[in-house]
Amino acid sequence: MVTSTKTEQREVSPGQDHPKKAFGWAARDSSGVLSPFKFSRRETGEKDVRFKVLYCGICHSDISIAKNDWSTTTYPVVPGHELVGVVTEVGCKVTKFKVGDRVGVGYMVESDRTCDNCVHHLENYCPNLVETFNAKYYDGTMTYGGYSNNMVADEHFIVRIPDNLPLDGVAPLLCAGITTYSPLRYYGLDKPGMHLGVNGLGGLGHVAVKFAKVLGLKVTVISTSPNKKKAAIEHLHADAFLLSTDQDQMQAAEGTMDGIIDTVPAVRPLEPLINLLKTNGKVVTVGIAAKPLDLPVLPLDLGRKMVAGSGFGGMKETQEMIDFAAEHSITADVEVIPIDYLNTAMERVVKKDVRFRFVIDIENTLKSSC
Amino acid sequence: MVTSTKTEQREVSPGQDHPKKAFGWAARDSSGVLSPFKFSRRETGEKDVRFKVLYCGICHSDISIAKNDWSTTTYPVVPGHELVGVVTEVGCKVTKFKVGDRVGVGYMVESDRTCDNCVHHLENYCPNLVETFNAKYYDGTMTYGGYSNNMVADEHFIVRIPDNLPLDGVAPLLCAGITTYSPLRYYGLDKPGMHLGVNGLGGLGHVAVKFAKVLGLKVTVISTSPNKKKAAIEHLHADAFLLSTDQDQMQAAEGTMDGIIDTVPAVRPLEPLINLLKTNGKVVTVGIAAKPLDLPVLPLDLGRKMVAGSGFGGMKETQEMIDFAAEHSITADVEVIPIDYLNTAMERVVKKDVRFRFVIDIENTLKSSC
Repeated sequence: MVTSTKTEQREVSPGQDHPKKAFGWAARDSSGVLSPFKFSRRETGEKDVRFKVLYCGICHSDISIAKNDWSTTTYPVVPGHELVGVVTEVGCKVTKFKVGDRVGVGYMVESDRTCDNCVHHLENYCPNLVETFNAKYYDGTMTYGGYSNNMVADEHFIVRIPDNLPLDGVAPLLCAGITTYSPLRYYGLDKPGMHLGVNGLGGLGHVAVKFAKVLGLKVTVISTSPNKKKAAIEHLHADAFLLSTDQDQMQAAEGTMDGIIDTVPAVRPLEPLINLLKTNGKVVTVGIAAKPLDLPVLPLDLGRKMVAGSGFGGMKETQEMIDFAAEHSITADVEVIPIDYLNTAMERVVKKDVRFRFVIDIENTLKSSC
Repeated sequence: MVTSTKTEQREVSPGQDHPKKAFGWAARDSSGVLSPFKFSRRETGEKDVRFKVLYCGICHSDISIAKNDWSTTTYPVVPGHELVGVVTEVGCKVTKFKVGDRVGVGYMVESDRTCDNCVHHLENYCPNLVETFNAKYYDGTMTYGGYSNNMVADEHFIVRIPDNLPLDGVAPLLCAGITTYSPLRYYGLDKPGMHLGVNGLGGLGHVAVKFAKVLGLKVTVISTSPNKKKAAIEHLHADAFLLSTDQDQMQAAEGTMDGIIDTVPAVRPLEPLINLLKTNGKVVTVGIAAKPLDLPVLPLDLGRKMVAGSGFGGMKETQEMIDFAAEHSITADVEVIPIDYLNTAMERVVKKDVRFRFVIDIENTLKSSC
C-alpha cells in the first residue's frame, strides 16, 4: 500500500539532514535500479527507539515506488517497510522498550495522534500519516526505509517481536501480515467454520491462508496459476483450490463463500468473485490496481454483498497480530537473500517468481564504511 | 429491483389458468404500452389472503420490465409491486388477517421457506423467490402484479397496514420504503448524529431522507439537478444539498459522511461518492445500472470503505418498516392518478418528471365488466 499523493523535490542533501550516519540501498531514478547510498537519520529523541536493522522484506509496493509507478516518488528513495532488528538505544522517556529488545517497523513511522482515526487506534488512516519511506516527516526531512543498516522511530510506531518468532520470517508480517489480518477481523471473517476465499497466492495471499486456517476457517485458494495448487493444498493446507480461469470450477463454487480476501494487485474481474459469495458475503480488496475495476451492481443487490477496502492496520492491531502470530507460530515463508541480489529479486517479484516473500539479510550482507 | 434471470414463454392462456376472474392493465410487447387485460387468479387457499386492490405505486422497475429492458419479460405482463387494499376473503388456516383488514403486498409473493435465507427472515434473497409479477409461481402459472383489481397471496407475504397511514401514501413504502429502510438498518446507518448522504431524490431517495431524519441523522441530498434543492431542504427538511456536478462543493464535503444511500438507477461515478465518506464509510447502491460502474480500489483501501448492495427486504423487516413508518407518520409523497393516465405517467417517470411517486387509484378508476 502507498498513501503519498504527490511527488516532491528534496530540499536538503540527504547526507546532511541529521547527525546520525546511515547506509542503505536507494533508487535514484525511475529505472528503479537500487545501489549503495549514504544518508543520515535523526538523533534518538526522548520518545525514540533506535535499532540495528537485521532483516527487511521486499513488498511489491517497494518496487512500484522505486520505479515511480504512482508518480509519488522523491529520489533518492530507500524502500523497505517490513524491517526488524535489535534495539541499540532508547530515549529517556521511552517506557516500552530497552536496549537488546527485538523490534520491528511497518508501513508508518508517525501520525498526528489527535485526529479521529488516531484516537481510535487507526493511525494508518490518519490524514497526516508519515510513511516509513518516501514521505516528508514533520521536521521537513524525508523518510528512508528498511533497506538500510539502522532505523529510528517514536516508540508508538515500534512493534515488539516475541522471542519465538524467527526474525526473517516475521519481517513480512509487518505489512503482508497486518494487511490480511486486519480485514479478517474488521469484516468479521474470523469465525470458525466460515468459508474464506483467498484470491492470489503471493506474499499477502499465503499469509492470509495461514491466519485463516488457525482461526478455524475453511479456506479456498483462488488463482489463475494451476501450478499454485500444490503449494496451496499440500504446503499451506488450504481446503480447496479454484482455478479462476476454469468457468466450470468457478460456477460450481458459486454461493459458497462468506468472504474473499482479494490480494491481486492488478485489474481483475470482480463479478466472478462476487458470484462466489453467499448472501451477505464480502469481497475485501487489498490488492491495488492502477485502473478502476468493473463493478456490476445487480449481483451485489441480489445478495446484499459488498466490495470493501482495507489498509494495513493501526499500531494496536499490528501488535495484536504479531502476538497472535507468535501464539500460533505463524511466519511468512521467505527466501532470504543478500542485498547484492536486490535488483534481481525485484525483477523476480514482478515476474511472480518468489515463494512467497524475499527478505534481505541486512545484518550479514549490507556492508559500509560509515 | 428485479430478480428474474430469463425470459420464458407462457404455457397456458392467462384467462384459463385459474377459477377466479381478475382484471388489470398489461403490456403486450416491448413497446411497454399498457392496456386493459382480463386474466385469472387462483382460489383462496387455506393459508391465502385475498384482497381488493385500492392503490398501486409505479416503480421504475415496472417500466423496465414492461419494456423488457432486462430481457426477462414474459408477455402479457401486469406490473405493480407496491399494492395495498382491503381483505375480502381468507383461507381456513389464516391466523394473522381477517376480512376488512388493510393490507399490502410488495416485491414477492412466495419463497421456498426452507433455505438459509428464508430461515433467517431474508426471503428476498431466497434462490427460489417468486416475484409479484413476471415470475413463474410454484404451480407453473405466471404471477400478475398490482395494476389489477384483486390479489391473492399466502399470508406470510401479506403486510398489515396500520390504520393511521393513508393507503395511497403507504403503497410505495412496500418497495421504495423497504429498499431504503433495510440498508439503513443492516449497515448500521441508523445512529442519531450520523451524517448520511442520499444520492438521487426520486421515489427511493425522498423516502430515504424521511427515514433518516426521524432516525436522528444529519442528511445531505446529493443530486445532479439544482432544482431539487428546494424540495430537499424546504420540503423534506434535509440538512444540506450537494450539487454533484459542482466539483468545489463536492471537494469541500469530502470525508464528512458515514454512509451514502445511492438510489440512482443509471451508470454514475462512484469515486466522488467514496471520497465523501469518512474512514469506515459505506456507499450502499440500491439503484441498478445496466452496465458495471467504475470502482477505484485505492480510495476504498485508504479509508477502509465499502461499496455495498442491498435488495428490498424480508417480510419480518418489511412489517417492522411499515410499523416504524406508522409510528413516525411517514408516507411517500405521491401523485395519485387514474389508470387511464398510466402510460403518460410512465413516460414522466422516465423523464424524472414526478414528485415523488405516482400511485394509481385502482378502486375508483379501474373499471371492468368481469
